[in-house]
This record gives sequence, structure tokens and C-alpha cells, in this order.
Amino acid sequence: MAALLTLNAGSSSLKFSLWPDGVTRGAGGQVEQLGGAARLVFDGGDGEEAREIGPVDHAGALEVILDALAPALAGRRVSGVGHRIVHGGADRRGPARLTAEVVAELEALAPFAPLHQPHNLAGLRAARAVFPDAVQVGAFDTAFHRGHPWVNDTFALPREYYEAGVRRYGFHGLSYEYIAGVLAAEAPELHAGRVIVCHLGNGASMCALKGGRSVGSTMGFSALDGLPMGTRCGQIDPGVLLYLMDRRGMSAGEITALLYRESGLKGLSGITSDMRTLEASDDPRAGEAIDYFVFRLSREIGAMAAVLGGLDGLVFTGGIGENSALIRARAVERLGFLGLAVDEAANAARAREIGAGPVRILRVETDEESVIAAAVRAEV
Amino acid sequence: MAALLTLNAGSSSLKFSLWPDGVTRGAGGQVEQLGGAARLVFDGGDGEEAREIGPVDHAGALEVILDALAPALAGRRVSGVGHRIVHGGADRRGPARLTAEVVAELEALAPFAPLHQPHNLAGLRAARAVFPDAVQVGAFDTAFHRGHPWVNDTFALPREYYEAGVRRYGFHGLSYEYIAGVLAAEAPELHAGRVIVCHLGNGASMCALKGGRSVGSTMGFSALDGLPMGTRCGQIDPGVLLYLMDRRGMSAGEITALLYRESGLKGLSGITSDMRTLEASDDPRAGEAIDYFVFRLSREIGAMAAVLGGLDGLVFTGGIGENSALIRARAVERLGFLGLAVDEAANAARAREIGAGPVRILRVETDEESVIAAAVRAEV
Repeated sequence: MAALLTLNAGSSSLKFSLWPDGVTRGAGGQVEQLGGAARLVFDGGDGEEAREIGPVDHAGALEVILDALAPALAGRRVSGVGHRIVHGGADRRGPARLTAEVVAELEALAPFAPLHQPHNLAGLRAARAVFPDAVQVGAFDTAFHRGHPWVNDTFALPREYYEAGVRRYGFHGLSYEYIAGVLAAEAPELHAGRVIVCHLGNGASMCALKGGRSVGSTMGFSALDGLPMGTRCGQIDPGVLLYLMDRRGMSAGEITALLYRESGLKGLSGITSDMRTLEASDDPRAGEAIDYFVFRLSREIGAMAAVLGGLDGLVFTGGIGENSALIRARAVERLGFLGLAVDEAANAARAREIGAGPVRILRVETDEESVIAAAVRAEV
Repeated sequence: MAALLTLNAGSSSLKFSLWPDGVTRGAGGQVEQLGGAARLVFDGGDGEEAREIGPVDHAGALEVILDALAPALAGRRVSGVGHRIVHGGADRRGPARLTAEVVAELEALAPFAPLHQPHNLAGLRAARAVFPDAVQVGAFDTAFHRGHPWVNDTFALPREYYEAGVRRYGFHGLSYEYIAGVLAAEAPELHAGRVIVCHLGNGASMCALKGGRSVGSTMGFSALDGLPMGTRCGQIDPGVLLYLMDRRGMSAGEITALLYRESGLKGLSGITSDMRTLEASDDPRAGEAIDYFVFRLSREIGAMAAVLGGLDGLVFTGGIGENSALIRARAVERLGFLGLAVDEAANAARAREIGAGPVRILRVETDEESVIAAAVRAEV
């Protein structure tokens, strides 16, 4: 099989993984700070190396990446490129070949994810220019959630808004799909049951899994809702936005900047969006930001358990979920009544099973790229 | 003791209760459709009577009310008037005499509750003109919640917003205070424990009570957040508001009208905001609106249980909570794992205790007016 490439294009970064034989993960990394003084972080298998590359856009970044991958490719053809695309729309329940017709549909969804979708599609355009003969496949963060029951897909608005696409889409679907696959392989009795997955990274959400399928998410229409995040507010009263508009005269752009980039852990702490830095800080505001994060996490575990009608397992994943023993422990410390308790030693040791109560608690390292690669593999 | 009067002034109605000896509830009722073809609904003890009174404002309505109350007053002096006031601000934890200084503070809070606060204060002005010598006392819907821990009082915004008053105030506090009093009198072991109160009326919220004190509410900064309501949306993704602003060009006023008056049960059903009508309807959209209401109610019971770290009791109150056996039953049908189950016969019979599981479930008729009257009594 020829090589595959998976890409995850954001506003300021282009992440990549090479699958030299189409199946095995090879070199990977990312170009960071796109549009500014960009740099390439590259891991060819012997650890990460970084170097400055000067200002580039998505297309320029992809050229730099291909140069860096040339030795690993060793002349092999790239037959397929997989793209992480945040929004697949209301009906798309799985990956899709990115034909001109599909791309037009995805472009029309940009108003629903203005901070992500255009960049995802810029990555696609760059890849199509470089690999005109490769199959281009999109894997969508919304797709895994599209089977939600209607009550968890709608807001309480007049029906025409639902018909026009104002729905609770849910995101991080590639991560949840990967976790569901791990459960199916390693814990089939949990996969068959009721599980809450906490994807806690710079973006954060929760998924309620029933029989391996998503029936609920804390994220809704946009990537803002639900849990507080590094720089995003999470759940907020709509009345706050009306107040910001009406009484502070803020524009949509100003409110977007506030809620997406200046809120969350960064806004509450006034220090940083980075959980590791907060955990290491003695500043009381750092501790308060963590308190808030844990409080909302715990509150939403209760809500998702109600959505599921009970709980068989809880999974932590994502950068914070995988690496912060503190957050994992504190998230459940008030939830003994749900059967949740953390085994301190197992939690500190980063074990797979870290629960000490009747409801299992797992720590799983997510791998969205492998889900994208599988989607491409199915199409080449 | 001289007579007391309690008033609840809204945008289109002025509700009143007379306490002829200051303690016993006497005649009561309301002037409806203020500003339009208003009518007086009056209950002097022999059932309600209604009559058209033509267009009046709050002051005119109060004159009509006093005429109607004259026989019941029988010449007694009104020594105190109590006012329901939605917003008491960040620090006010109890009722207050409405001195000029306090009123100025309350007027400054109008931007936080633009649809309620100005009308509440219009009621006060009308009463002050008619009873210049009476003590005027405000009882605040926010006050009961002001002891919330910080994590449940803040949003994940930069700190200056919290300092400027952008907080999760919580409302319906007079109802919750009344319920807490009933629990203290009738079920002291519940009062000492962890209880969720569901105030389900045309407005709806939940309160998490621990030891008789509020530690959480589903309502936040405004009366929009949390549960879906008759015409209000409840919880909604902030991204939806950004979309309405940015892509549909809607103003703050237009979004306010949509989210406060055209959403909730009315928006989802396309029929009515009235739960009784929806329950009686064969229209599938009526059933779907009820499904959504029940789903969110159940979800938030799970969330509030997590806030409390477990659950000893659940109370239903408010128009829907008191009168809809269907909603009470369906709210807990997925929550057996929390120890909640409804006794069908007791529920249908509108009994006080309607639970069949280890966690008690109560149906209590709320009485906000008696809380306001007690606040006035303490000041005259």
C-alpha cells in the first residue's frame, strides 16, 4: 500500500502524521505559529526537533512538511490524505471523500464554526495542490454525535432555527470514536454499557456513550459551550451576551474574542491557559481557576449520568485528562454517591484502570490521527 | 397591628395580597394586561371575580386595587408594603427597607434585569405615592442565593467581569426560602440534608439546598439560563447568540425578544407556552416540547445532585411542579440510579410525599407572598 498522510489544520498550526505503509504510524509533528515566525516541530522517531522556518501559510507549511518527510517517504507515493474537519453538518455521520460537491457543502458550514472550518479547508486546498492525484478524505468532529436523540440535538428555540442548522452538534468526535474503539477492544462490557468520556485538553468536552454510541455531549452548537477550557468560557448565561451587547456596546467580533480567547482558565487565573502551569503555581487565582474547572467537570458528570440513566464507567483522555492526576482525582471527589472513587496509587502511576469504586474509571491516551488514517484507508 | 400589603409588579401585571391584621392573609388578586385592556382579578375569599377596568399603568392599577380592598380594610391603616424585587445585587442577602439610597442602588441594577427590575420599581413608586407614611420593604429573588460558593457564583470570564457584577445570581429565591421554611417545619432531617427544589412555573429554575441554604441554582446572571421555560430558552450555547448577531444581523433587542418571548415551550411546540394545553394536545410537537422540558429537567437534577455531592430529597413546586403529575413522574423516570422513584398513586393524589424510593420526593405549594409579608412584618 502507498503512504497516507493525515492533517489537522488549525488557525495557527498544521499538524501531520505520515503512515508510510498506510497502516503504521511514521514521522509526525506540526508547523506552529502559522502566519507569524513559524517553526517546524518534527519527530522522525528519535524524539522531537524544532527549527524556525519563517513566515508561511498553510500551503507553505505543507511544503516544509513534505521536505522534512522526504527521507521517511523514500520515494513512496502518497495515495491518500485525511483531514480533520471540525464541522460535517447536520446529516453527516461518518467520513467522506472531499469531492468538489462535498467541499462546497463544508464551505457553507463555515458560519457554524468560523474559527475552525475555514482553516480546515485551507489545509485541504494546500494538500490538493501538492497531491492532485491523492484521495482526499474528511473526518468530522461532529459526525460521531449525529445520532443524538432530538431532545439533546435541539435548543428550545422556534423550530425554524433547528431546521436552519442551529443544533447541539457536539465536537471532539474523532477522539470519542477512538475511545469507543479502545473500549470495544479492551473492555467490551463497558462498551456495551453507559460510559462518560471526558476529553480534557485545551478544548474540553464530555461525551455520554451508550453501547458505544454518543447520546449526549456537553458541547453544543459551537466549540464554546459546556466545560470551561484553556481560553474559552464554556457554559455561560445568554443574558451575559445580551448585557455585553446592550450595555457595553460590544460587537460580535469583540464578544467572540472575549469568549474564545480571553476566558476559561486564562481569564479566571489572569495567568495562563495552561493547566500544568496553574497546578505548579502558588498564586491563589491559579488555585481558584482549577477549583472552577473541577466544579464544572463534576457538575457535568452528574448531568451526563442523568442523560445516561446511570453510569458504568468514566474515561479521562486529552492532554489534561491523560496527564493530570490532580484533575482526575478532584473531578470525582464529590461523586462517591455515583459509585466513583479514584485509587490514588493507580492514578499517580497513570494506570489504565484508576477506579476504586463500583463504577470503573479509565485513563486512555487518545489518538485522533489513527481515526483519520482509518477513514482514508477505507477510501484508497 | 395595622394592615400590610404585598405587591408583585411585573411588566404586564400587578399582583397583590392584603394582610388585614398583618399576619393573616386576606383578599388578593391581580391586575392583568397593564398598559392594554386591563382587568382586575379579585378574590375576597369567595372565589375569583374578574372585571374589565380599561387601560391603566402601575399607579392606576394600584388605585383600582385599593378601591377593591376598601371593604376588607374597613378603615384600617396600611402600615407596611412589601415588594417583590427581582434583583438585590451581589451583596444583599436579605430584605431591605426601601430608603432613597437603597432604591438608587436597585435602579442601578436595572441593566442586570432589564425586563423585571424597572417594573418592580414602578410598583414601589406607585405604592409610595398612595401610602407615603407606610414602611416600604423589598424582598429580593437573588438574596437567598448570595451564599453560593465562588465556583458557583462566577463565570469563566476575566475577573473584572465578576467584579463588575457579571455573576450567577440565581432567582426565584422567595419561593426557595418558603420551601426551606416548610422543610424546616415538616421535615427537619431533610432540611438538614441535601435537597433539590424544582420551581417549575412560567419561569423555572432549580435550587440545590444544603442545610436549608442555597448552594446552587440553574439560573445564572439573568432569568434566561438553565431550564427551558414557557417562552424562555433556558440553557443555550453562547455561539448561537454570536451566530444570530454575526450571520443574521440581529440586534440585542431582537435576540432578547426571541430568547425571552418566543422560545421555550412556545417556540418548540409552535402552539403555546402553557403546559396544561400542551399536555392536553394531540399535536406531536406538543409532545416533543414536553419531552425536551423533561429531558433538561432530568439532566439538571443530575447536575444539581453532583453539586450537592449526593441527594436526600427532591421537591416540586410552582405552577407546573404543583399541578402536573405527568411532569413530576417523567422528570425522575430515568433517575432510579439516584434513588428517585415516584409512587404513582400518591403522585396522582397530589400528596405531600410522592416518592417510592430511598430519596424522598415532596410536592409543596409555594407561597412567595408570605415570605414578602414576613419581611415587612419584621420592619413595621
